[in-house]
Amino acid sequence: MDKKIQSEIRGLRDQCGVAYVGSVRGDGFPQVKAMLVAEHDDMKVHYFSTNLSSKRAAQFTENPKACVYYCHEREFRGALFTGTIEVCTDHDTKALIWHNGDEMYYPNGVDDEDYCVYKFTAETVNYYHGLSNETFPIEELLEQA
Amino acid sequence: MDKKIQSEIRGLRDQCGVAYVGSVRGDGFPQVKAMLVAEHDDMKVHYFSTNLSSKRAAQFTENPKACVYYCHEREFRGALFTGTIEVCTDHDTKALIWHNGDEMYYPNGVDDEDYCVYKFTAETVNYYHGLSNETFPIEELLEQA
Repeated sequence: MDKKIQSEIRGLRDQCGVAYVGSVRGDGFPQVKAMLVAEHDDMKVHYFSTNLSSKRAAQFTENPKACVYYCHEREFRGALFTGTIEVCTDHDTKALIWHNGDEMYYPNGVDDEDYCVYKFTAETVNYYHGLSNETFPIEELLEQA
Repeated sequence: MDKKIQSEIRGLRDQCGVAYVGSVRGDGFPQVKAMLVAEHDDMKVHYFSTNLSSKRAAQFTENPKACVYYCHEREFRGALFTGTIEVCTDHDTKALIWHNGDEMYYPNGVDDEDYCVYKFTAETVNYYHGLSNETFPIEELLEQA
């Protein structure tokens, strides 16, 4: 992957407040929901917070196959990460993503039983811009520029 | 479905220039791409134009299970339609969606062999707004207000 594309994908992700997270339902239908972008370890691991009681958390526990899509609508640019989601309920992962104000949704704080974290680990990234459309192993995005 | 929700879903869709279209790859991973919103017969049938040579068109031919998602990021509102996509290559369907200027992408016009139309037919719609989240059979959205 050339450095220009690396930098464009990183920039695209930094601009996005929302990611579109894809899952596969038990009956094989794809599903998409917008989720707020939260912390990430690097471009390979992305975190999202949500409620454990949701249908989607149950879907990912059953079938971890997932995608995470960052998009700049007006510029027709998008980065589609494909990989798996682990539904984390341990204190340390939950504390990593917790923000002041989240008590509004989870009154018992970090250890609220309904609060959980999706840990998404990417295997590939597809980037399209203009008429170009390429897929790379995620490791190519991690190489230092 | 009450009339307020009917009207909110219709309004949301009218506002969106872009829809997020979900598919399932041959190896079972979900995929999401932004597509420009085009004509629709009603809230049950939604059309999108694309190129037949794309990987995605091949995916839908193999596995028609799909979803189409319209989202208002700032208001935390979204309508997720679940159903199937038919990849149409007949003249009449292609002419329905054709716009002046599309020659930029398909130099041979409506009958360009690489131009095709996704005809998405919804079975259900899920609507979330605030903390409310409900799924309805698509017929409930078609009833006249």
